[in-house]
Amino acid sequence: MEKIIKFSTAATHFYFAAAISKLKEIADKKMAVIITDEHIYTAHSKKFSGWKTIVLKPGEQYKVQPTVDEVIQQLIGLQADRKTTLIGVGGGVITDITGYIASVYMRGLRFGFVPTSILGLVDASIGGKNGIDVGPYKNMVGVIRQPSFILHDMNLLNSLPQLEWENGFAEVIKHACIKDAALFAALEKNTLKDYQSRRKTIAELVERNALIKIRVVQKDEFEKGDRRLLNLGHTLGHAIETQYNLIHGHAIAIGMVAACRISEQLSGFKQTERVVQLLERYHLPTHLDFDPGKVFEVLKMDKKRELKTMNFVLLDKIGKAVVRAIPMKQLEQIIGGLNQK
Amino acid sequence: MEKIIKFSTAATHFYFAAAISKLKEIADKKMAVIITDEHIYTAHSKKFSGWKTIVLKPGEQYKVQPTVDEVIQQLIGLQADRKTTLIGVGGGVITDITGYIASVYMRGLRFGFVPTSILGLVDASIGGKNGIDVGPYKNMVGVIRQPSFILHDMNLLNSLPQLEWENGFAEVIKHACIKDAALFAALEKNTLKDYQSRRKTIAELVERNALIKIRVVQKDEFEKGDRRLLNLGHTLGHAIETQYNLIHGHAIAIGMVAACRISEQLSGFKQTERVVQLLERYHLPTHLDFDPGKVFEVLKMDKKRELKTMNFVLLDKIGKAVVRAIPMKQLEQIIGGLNQK
Repeated sequence: MEKIIKFSTAATHFYFAAAISKLKEIADKKMAVIITDEHIYTAHSKKFSGWKTIVLKPGEQYKVQPTVDEVIQQLIGLQADRKTTLIGVGGGVITDITGYIASVYMRGLRFGFVPTSILGLVDASIGGKNGIDVGPYKNMVGVIRQPSFILHDMNLLNSLPQLEWENGFAEVIKHACIKDAALFAALEKNTLKDYQSRRKTIAELVERNALIKIRVVQKDEFEKGDRRLLNLGHTLGHAIETQYNLIHGHAIAIGMVAACRISEQLSGFKQTERVVQLLERYHLPTHLDFDPGKVFEVLKMDKKRELKTMNFVLLDKIGKAVVRAIPMKQLEQIIGGLNQK
Repeated sequence: MEKIIKFSTAATHFYFAAAISKLKEIADKKMAVIITDEHIYTAHSKKFSGWKTIVLKPGEQYKVQPTVDEVIQQLIGLQADRKTTLIGVGGGVITDITGYIASVYMRGLRFGFVPTSILGLVDASIGGKNGIDVGPYKNMVGVIRQPSFILHDMNLLNSLPQLEWENGFAEVIKHACIKDAALFAALEKNTLKDYQSRRKTIAELVERNALIKIRVVQKDEFEKGDRRLLNLGHTLGHAIETQYNLIHGHAIAIGMVAACRISEQLSGFKQTERVVQLLERYHLPTHLDFDPGKVFEVLKMDKKRELKTMNFVLLDKIGKAVVRAIPMKQLEQIIGGLNQK
């Protein structure tokens, strides 16, 4: 089902519950280049037949400038020009880097995504943020530019490893926490297995979550207000993710619980245990014994810092998040105290 | 004199005939970082007092990704955040790379320019195009994003080498060729020395040329139409610039004469000799014995190519340029024939 979603700078065509074979109607095979990773390419090699394809090594550690340099050399080799469409087929790493390259190569090409992971489907592919990591700093370099299209094919989930399902459900639970108490309650009744085994149930969940993110981005594409809520768990999460080599979903699950505890202290939030239980239900970790000094060193370069305060996302209650500017000194103390619990 | 110029995506404050000391009113010293090069920093070191400054090696060969990587590391070291303003003080290389870094660091910071060369004042700093070179391909990577401000200080020209004056006048002559026959006639009456020795005359020339470029960009920020005219001499020019290690102005002067000769062949242009004489009057070269095969190899990756045709800028008459889509095969033949003249 096709939906055209208008953002302030451009529109994105969403093809929900579609098939990747439809790609050839959206982009001309002769004038497109697919960017994917070795896992996806190996698991679905037939789908790439007849498409010019650049295959990257999988993993967040390759979401860095040397990979961008390499892809640009390949695009030059393929004589890609301003009529070329770049298509990222993969998880968040692939769509982030594809969107970034498409935004800067020849000052911008048309691009679109086929997300192949839950995290990609419900979060990373949507909203136009793209970019790369710099050392321990996640997404330090990038731009905001909307893709021309996003195509969902649930069959691609067949090759998704268990860990990646958990990874994606961390963002689903985040959406429920910040915007959708009814979704939170539904997740409490189901299990990961339910979603993995029922194609229709997962398709509905994916679309519901994609629409949560779409609505937030539509209201605030450049993150001056509501879009910041999507960062629940991400400030501490990003800092521990790179320092402790965690997968993103695990890092932000731990980050969300930390945000709940900070919310208890600063705004009287009382539902931390429900959040912890839901995360555990979906096999997500809720605690890490991290070194506060080491983590704070990275955290203070977070993009949400502005001079001496950090825009930190807290929960008022399940389904309602708020942003609070916390002085960096206070935040350092609070984070130092988290592990004493 | 301050003028606010609106482009389709943002406005730029132009401070014509101002002084660099005014910078402190436009950007907060504590929250700004200046990017400049060793030449400018040495020649005007007092002007940088109290500003955080990143000093780059001078020259087009440093307008590349490794320099961007290095500046990003320095910005992280300086704890630059989204409240930081980046200010490029220098010629086209500095403003191109500063605009690019400001567009991608943390997905975009406020930025502005103080151009210190004629080329920077009349051309490179204006219009939001920024970026870096990739191997022999000029400006292969970049974005279009307007600076918040551009400040002109004619005193900075005191340190400009003779070669750089010539470099800038190539773009002045280009503006005259494509848009302003009266300017062309005025240039025919004056000499480079006149402009170098009279502060008021050069200030007027700079503002007139800046306004030519501003008006073209205002009508067509994303280069779907009229902005392409600014590329007169640049298609062949860029290809020989990197292959023969020419300065930009020399390369496009040669490129403009080639465009005149192609215009003779394709649209009956008859004023090539006047263009050649004006370029020579400003000490610019008008011919190069290049290897057509080698040059065409680079030229075919020019951003103005679309599949099998190149959008090439020709002259109808002095003061009026047109874009013509030339099939690549025909262009290869024409370029092969240029040196036989």
